[in-house]
Amino acid sequence: MPFVHIDLREGTSAADRRAIADAVHQALVETMGVPADDRFQVISEHTREGLIYDQTYLGIARTDAVIFIQITLSVGRKPAQKRALYARITEVLTREPGVRAQDVVINLVEVAWENWSFGDGEAQYTQ
Amino acid sequence: MPFVHIDLREGTSAADRRAIADAVHQALVETMGVPADDRFQVISEHTREGLIYDQTYLGIARTDAVIFIQITLSVGRKPAQKRALYARITEVLTREPGVRAQDVVINLVEVAWENWSFGDGEAQYTQ
Amino acid sequence: MPFVHIDLREGTSAADRRAIADAVHQALVETMGVPADDRFQVISEHTREGLIYDQTYLGIARTDAVIFIQITLSVGRKPAQKRALYARITEVLTREPGVRAQDVVINLVEVAWENWSFGDGEAQYTQ
Repeated sequence: MPFVHIDLREGTSAADRRAIADAVHQALVETMGVPADDRFQVISEHTREGLIYDQTYLGIARTDAVIFIQITLSVGRKPAQKRALYARITEVLTREPGVRAQDVVINLVEVAWENWSFGDGEAQYTQ
Repeated sequence: MPFVHIDLREGTSAADRRAIADAVHQALVETMGVPADDRFQVISEHTREGLIYDQTYLGIARTDAVIFIQITLSVGRKPAQKRALYARITEVLTREPGVRAQDVVINLVEVAWENWSFGDGEAQYTQ
Repeated sequence: MPFVHIDLREGTSAADRRAIADAVHQALVETMGVPADDRFQVISEHTREGLIYDQTYLGIARTDAVIFIQITLSVGRKPAQKRALYARITEVLTREPGVRAQDVVINLVEVAWENWSFGDGEAQYTQ
């Protein structure tokens, strides 16, 4: 059910991009109760001009290795669960592939449970 | 009013990409009452590494021809209307350009009616 | 807090793309009370086939220079503030880099305040 968009600068290796996507999914499974096989992710690489970020907003020192993670998911998670997700995504990413914690920017977009079709033209979550 | 993002693997012909976009728009017009000329769509092609999907989630057998369709639209559609949209998008796509029904993944994001400007710096839907 | 996606046709110069991103950010600061250093933007260029728009919807004459601006931001802005944002984005863009007002298409996606992490794995807006 989560649909994940990852935006980063070009130059990240394919292995590291995979590790980043793996980390986000692992954290969703561990903190949000997302099924392990409920995985749909898009990774987009951008030129220097195509990905703009502030280097100090809120006193956090970001670098060109910044990663934007936008997760569309169904409503109903409490703030504490969202905080656990942010912490876990960042924790796993810092370990593998070794992203700086300051470079992990996350945004959630919540939608209704009937707003998904996973194939066959049906709204599987309303059945 | 709908703003449609289509993500798919690179290698789809320009004609097929157009047919996919046409199918999504036709279904929006037929099931959601969207005006025929209310059409704004972005199609992004991805490498193998850039588009990750599960091949069996919910028992649906997806292939590399999977298509992610994310539609931002105004609030107010009932679940039955959303189900009709999923069914119709998938039905049209299977006919032309011939996408497998299992490869059609759809997600809706709903926003307020005043959340749109279609040009000239005005919020046309609040006037 | 706003996360801005800008989609346009390829062929726009890097300088013009920067000016477009600057204009959107300036308008957010001026009309929405967004901090000047709260800036996170992604610009994606598309082929002719990859960016589809209607040339006359609502009587507005759009051209291939059309720009889609999707802004994810926290809830709480009144309709009047949103209208001020659309007007100001468009006003600044028409001046620099000189975009036609009819070519500016804007969409807002609103999310809860706890739906953001700006680094370090924390939900900074809930603290």
